[in-house]
Amino acid sequence: MTTSNDGKLVRSQGVTAPLGFRAAGIAAGIKKNGKPDLALVFNEGPDYSAAGVFTRNKVKAAPVLWSQQVLTGGRLRAVILNSGGANACTGPGGFQDTHATAEELAKALSNWGTETGAGEIAVCSTGLIGDRLPMDKLIPGITEIVHEMGGGLSGGAEAARAIMTTDTVPKEAAFHHRDKWNVGGMGKGAGMLAPSLATMLIVLTTDAVATPQQLDTALRNATRLTFDRLDVDGSTSTNDTVLLLANGASGVAPSQDELNAAVYAVCDDIAEQLMFDAEGVTKRVHITVTGALDEEQALIGARAISRDSLVKTAFFGSDPNWGRVLASIGIAPIELDPNRISVSFNGSPVCVDGVGAPGAREVDLSGPDIQVLVELNLGDGQATIRTTDLSHGYVEENSAYSS
Amino acid sequence: MTTSNDGKLVRSQGVTAPLGFRAAGIAAGIKKNGKPDLALVFNEGPDYSAAGVFTRNKVKAAPVLWSQQVLTGGRLRAVILNSGGANACTGPGGFQDTHATAEELAKALSNWGTETGAGEIAVCSTGLIGDRLPMDKLIPGITEIVHEMGGGLSGGAEAARAIMTTDTVPKEAAFHHRDKWNVGGMGKGAGMLAPSLATMLIVLTTDAVATPQQLDTALRNATRLTFDRLDVDGSTSTNDTVLLLANGASGVAPSQDELNAAVYAVCDDIAEQLMFDAEGVTKRVHITVTGALDEEQALIGARAISRDSLVKTAFFGSDPNWGRVLASIGIAPIELDPNRISVSFNGSPVCVDGVGAPGAREVDLSGPDIQVLVELNLGDGQATIRTTDLSHGYVEENSAYSS
Repeated sequence: MTTSNDGKLVRSQGVTAPLGFRAAGIAAGIKKNGKPDLALVFNEGPDYSAAGVFTRNKVKAAPVLWSQQVLTGGRLRAVILNSGGANACTGPGGFQDTHATAEELAKALSNWGTETGAGEIAVCSTGLIGDRLPMDKLIPGITEIVHEMGGGLSGGAEAARAIMTTDTVPKEAAFHHRDKWNVGGMGKGAGMLAPSLATMLIVLTTDAVATPQQLDTALRNATRLTFDRLDVDGSTSTNDTVLLLANGASGVAPSQDELNAAVYAVCDDIAEQLMFDAEGVTKRVHITVTGALDEEQALIGARAISRDSLVKTAFFGSDPNWGRVLASIGIAPIELDPNRISVSFNGSPVCVDGVGAPGAREVDLSGPDIQVLVELNLGDGQATIRTTDLSHGYVEENSAYSS
Repeated sequence: MTTSNDGKLVRSQGVTAPLGFRAAGIAAGIKKNGKPDLALVFNEGPDYSAAGVFTRNKVKAAPVLWSQQVLTGGRLRAVILNSGGANACTGPGGFQDTHATAEELAKALSNWGTETGAGEIAVCSTGLIGDRLPMDKLIPGITEIVHEMGGGLSGGAEAARAIMTTDTVPKEAAFHHRDKWNVGGMGKGAGMLAPSLATMLIVLTTDAVATPQQLDTALRNATRLTFDRLDVDGSTSTNDTVLLLANGASGVAPSQDELNAAVYAVCDDIAEQLMFDAEGVTKRVHITVTGALDEEQALIGARAISRDSLVKTAFFGSDPNWGRVLASIGIAPIELDPNRISVSFNGSPVCVDGVGAPGAREVDLSGPDIQVLVELNLGDGQATIRTTDLSHGYVEENSAYSS
């Protein structure tokens, strides 16, 4: 739990922390192993503002194409999410499955007493790319999950559990603002760290009063600084989706800055949780580049280092092999002067002005956290990327047969 | 051995296959394990034309800075190469070491009877980045290696062995043209596949009559299509160097096309040998993108796939997980239509027009070679990248402590 002047952040609550949101998670039989695989987040109103950001991959899963279209209206009543199948590269039939899912949920919610249209429902899927979803399991599951949600408790934890694929723990966070409004969230995966079981999916909720434009601003600001800077293996899935729903149930209309800060706090914490639970992770690595010409160049440099297999295997071996850091940033398309680069690992200088520092080979990286600081000494640009090591566990999990 | 209309390619000979080249390789004590670590290639003339291509990394090792400068003259008498240390990120002192190495060799060659200046000598180094070379071993080694070269047989095989770092076998190839001229070569490493022991070093020789400009054209054409398209881990070393020396000893002046073809044949074969001996390799992978808008776009797409850790771990697991191929090319900065992409593995269609093909999950990738063909169906651009899988062996070799 983190407490600031503005409020406090907790990990014990998620999408149902804000007023007026319900959720549920069930096992509908989409996953062959019988684990939970269907989640629902429902907005009770009075407002239905929403915003979303989606994968930049040109190969987009059917639910991404659907939800992008729905979000152009800036309004969402509900989000239905399944694990156990990405519904990507499934052609027109796969898109029809997504459409049928939204229609079925609209019907079930209307039967339950809340008149809802399919165009107010976002759909998210995660799992193996390339297979059609088992609609004979999914469609009955929708009736069941609406019943489950209507029956009882908040259900945020169950929803967070039902979207897990290779995640080992569910990820939730909530920010309670001192002015009595809240932001909650849940997430799974990270980039394509959960690869054949693709996808980062994040759903955020708030009971603040906010327009779709305000939500969009807050969401883009937060994702740019958090999920966009979490890079486990450089891969971007076909299904990445981050949604933010607001219902105004608190009656409080925060300023844009306050909303930005609260959404950022929840996203930043979920991003940290995703890094900690990355496949095969044995080291949690923060790579910071400072002194670049601008923030964009710092980001490109930090990302180049974070994607270098040689840097990542060295960290797995607790090896302070700083030459690999220089070699990786040296090929990044940014301005740099090799004779002005300095590098430190966990605060110990390993390279000063492009030359090895005394004792560099003896720096102890045996702990679970590694802070890499690269100072380019050219300007004021700075950025940090969260990443992990490249371990036997990563190779093991990702070489397992997809079926 | 490969025989074509123009001549034949053999792997039993290297830099001393052309007339008028001598070579040697010795253990000078630079490597602590006592293995060969110093190589010399010497051009007996009558011509001394030369060309070189060097790493595009902004962080360049001292010997790269030296040899680039020397090559501006288009003339080389000799190349001295050491393994056991990259002499990169070593500051002005490291550059002085390279200079001293060239001066010492010039003196030794002059004493031996061949008046030589340091400005006619290229220097190459390979090994761990960041440490100064043991000049107390290297300098006496230079006298010894000139003596060794003067004493006897051709020495090409010994030179090829002395530049090895984590290579398990030396790499040599020679092309004998039917018109009685020859191209020979030796190489080690690939990209930064031999990482903390960095570097791809290649020396090519020919007894053809050719100007530095002709050599430069032939060398750039060949490296663009061979070494530049070998991508084991996406890393580019601080020391990569490819040199081509010509002495005209055959008295034959081939056309530019003939020279291009012969140099390409040797480079292509050495590139194939480098892929086969990449660290931890269990699969030899050729990734071809066709139907791109142009060759450059095909190359960017093929490279994106070849660098994707998820694609590479799937291949390690013999898993025909084609969705990862689509996800990786989908984020490449090239034109593509997701609904027109088709993919095959070893000739079996796994994805047609962006949708999985029947039987795709059953394609057998258990053999050592995997051919990936991605058809974008947009234009005539085509390119192939050679790469490998991402295995436990790769992680093991590259996580070992650098000292």
